[in-house]
Amino acid sequence: MTDWGERAAAMLAQLSHLSEPGPGVTRLPFTPEHRAALDLLKEWMEGIGLTVTLDDAGTLVGRLDGPPGVGTFLMGSHQDSVREGGAFDGIMGVVLPLLALEKLRAEGVALTFAVEILAFADEEGVRFPTALIGSRALAGRYDNQVLDMRDANGVSLRAAMADFGLNPDGIDALKRDPDNVIGFLETHIEQGPVLERECEAVGIVTAICGIERHQIEIVGETGHAGTLPMEGRRDALVTAAAIVTELNRAARSTPDLRATVGALTVEPNVVNAVPRAAHLTAELRSPCDETRRAAGVELHRFAELLAQEKGVRINCTRTYAQTAQPCSPDLSVQLGRAVKQTGGRGVSLPSGATHDASAMADLCPIIMLFVRSQDGISHKPEEFTAPEDMNTAIDVLARFLKIADQK
Amino acid sequence: MTDWGERAAAMLAQLSHLSEPGPGVTRLPFTPEHRAALDLLKEWMEGIGLTVTLDDAGTLVGRLDGPPGVGTFLMGSHQDSVREGGAFDGIMGVVLPLLALEKLRAEGVALTFAVEILAFADEEGVRFPTALIGSRALAGRYDNQVLDMRDANGVSLRAAMADFGLNPDGIDALKRDPDNVIGFLETHIEQGPVLERECEAVGIVTAICGIERHQIEIVGETGHAGTLPMEGRRDALVTAAAIVTELNRAARSTPDLRATVGALTVEPNVVNAVPRAAHLTAELRSPCDETRRAAGVELHRFAELLAQEKGVRINCTRTYAQTAQPCSPDLSVQLGRAVKQTGGRGVSLPSGATHDASAMADLCPIIMLFVRSQDGISHKPEEFTAPEDMNTAIDVLARFLKIADQK
Repeated sequence: MTDWGERAAAMLAQLSHLSEPGPGVTRLPFTPEHRAALDLLKEWMEGIGLTVTLDDAGTLVGRLDGPPGVGTFLMGSHQDSVREGGAFDGIMGVVLPLLALEKLRAEGVALTFAVEILAFADEEGVRFPTALIGSRALAGRYDNQVLDMRDANGVSLRAAMADFGLNPDGIDALKRDPDNVIGFLETHIEQGPVLERECEAVGIVTAICGIERHQIEIVGETGHAGTLPMEGRRDALVTAAAIVTELNRAARSTPDLRATVGALTVEPNVVNAVPRAAHLTAELRSPCDETRRAAGVELHRFAELLAQEKGVRINCTRTYAQTAQPCSPDLSVQLGRAVKQTGGRGVSLPSGATHDASAMADLCPIIMLFVRSQDGISHKPEEFTAPEDMNTAIDVLARFLKIADQK
Repeated sequence: MTDWGERAAAMLAQLSHLSEPGPGVTRLPFTPEHRAALDLLKEWMEGIGLTVTLDDAGTLVGRLDGPPGVGTFLMGSHQDSVREGGAFDGIMGVVLPLLALEKLRAEGVALTFAVEILAFADEEGVRFPTALIGSRALAGRYDNQVLDMRDANGVSLRAAMADFGLNPDGIDALKRDPDNVIGFLETHIEQGPVLERECEAVGIVTAICGIERHQIEIVGETGHAGTLPMEGRRDALVTAAAIVTELNRAARSTPDLRATVGALTVEPNVVNAVPRAAHLTAELRSPCDETRRAAGVELHRFAELLAQEKGVRINCTRTYAQTAQPCSPDLSVQLGRAVKQTGGRGVSLPSGATHDASAMADLCPIIMLFVRSQDGISHKPEEFTAPEDMNTAIDVLARFLKIADQK
């Protein structure tokens, strides 16, 4: 009996060597490492009878045809990593569905729809200041202005793609007809601690969180830490601390809200001067747009009252906003049934991070399967998902395809 | 009738030009600007009959002899400024007592003790990483190891002093006999807003605050701002915010305590990562050592409880401590009488900053007269004290000398 989890672990280990030198995995898009990964994936895809093509966005497509005229179910994730990242983020979402198809083939199951396994070129956006080209192209949401963006060496994305043997002018034509696409399932490591805390191998994503970011500038008044009495101080850091505390309190008491002050700097930042200014960022994420927006409005209201109370000037600007992408209820139910068939509880959780599925939501119903991350670690060489958990995930994916087929 | 305040303003304006080029006043010790200031001060001192010498620590001493065998009352402050500082900090404490002596002379008053006006070379410690050499030398607390310290150009303090015509090996011999010194009075701009708020031209310093500094390192755990649920986060910045808030609350509710978190840095300090670490400084100042020490102990206790509550590691180290220097009660009473004779209320306030008087306290009873700073501003070109206030201060100093003489 094949140990599918060990098979997956061995394949991911092999792929992890297709990396720039250094700790962990560094595999950026349109590089020799990308090419080597595609060659290996192509070999594996062809090994189980898929027809393999590389589209002009650099997405490797392994297609298992169904009967004539049927729709296609898409599965996959991205091949690229961050710098000195791990061996699982992204690429595991290509390998596991591949093994699920092989498992079905071994069981002699023939699906009544076509399946495609996709390996997108670039989701992390590390090399170029853009990402999700492959998934956006399929959804018809690709903007060809990004081709002029350059990497750190001054190479444009257009040149990098052409060098890779692609025709960037062909990307527009990659748009899929929504009528022919049944759905998209992305398998991904959780990159968080929820499944580990829940003692579950896999979980079903309810939605990809919406995000908003705020830039907060506080300007008070500096003074000598010795000569300025406490009374009447307009301390920018004391004000910033009130915002950090309140935002944390609000997120802890609001279901489905995550709030983080990740960056904070102080001026003049010396031991014996009352801080004149503080600059901080606030990031809000929620699977529920209403919750997120309300928290943003409340943040601005709190800052306004605080500015009056502390006698400081607070400039609060929303610099970024991205709406949540809910997963398909139908696909959720089907994936939940598959998880329960494998003995899992079918834990639901939002995805706090953005994924290719966010872009694919513009094309078709989406669903994501999260697989437990050890210690919630991601984007580091220590990133790890156990073979047993991958084994469960492969089983879930195979069962899901059968359930979807019976619908 | 002489307008002593306008005289002081004109003299300070003249001195302010003895500066490196650039905004405000930059007059560092043992430089051509220092020499030019000493030449001018010497001329003024000799003009009112003082005997002028330059001691081997670079302190200009203008002596008004008294009857044979009497003690000496010392008055003065420092000639140096910070870089791009103001025209009042330090040097005003040389000019005003000089004018007070001239005033007494004009009134025909002959004191029964000797008076010396001192212009110390270096209190700010801007050029060399040490300060207070002149005052420490008089108190016998000078450490000759500082002579090896170098400025930004690699010039040692020993070489700079020798170049200035001084004999650094003669500094040890400058120690005064405490039996021959009646006291030391330092006149200084307040560098804070208290007198302005109190609508008083001058104030009497109760003590020079003790200072302690703490370095606080908080180590929590980072994670993706989207994938890490609020529950179980070990956010170093949220912890730091609790310390900033608590320290501010404690200082506001404790009489005579000033507490400042002046510096704070965050790691990794990016918008979408939960802060892993935070480094902050805490500075406590109080004229009462017991109050300051208790606040330091309470800070460590709070940090310990907080570390448990937040699941983070907090390393809290006291890196510096300097005890308070109380001013002489006798001299305070005499100065208070002088202030009241001029129509002032005799407001008492601590000095949050360190001064030459701190070092002189090791030699003799000390007292300080603070003069109102406009907007509490100091160490900037905008530093300003009104001529009317200096006029009052000169009157107070002259009256103080007469009161001290009658004791």
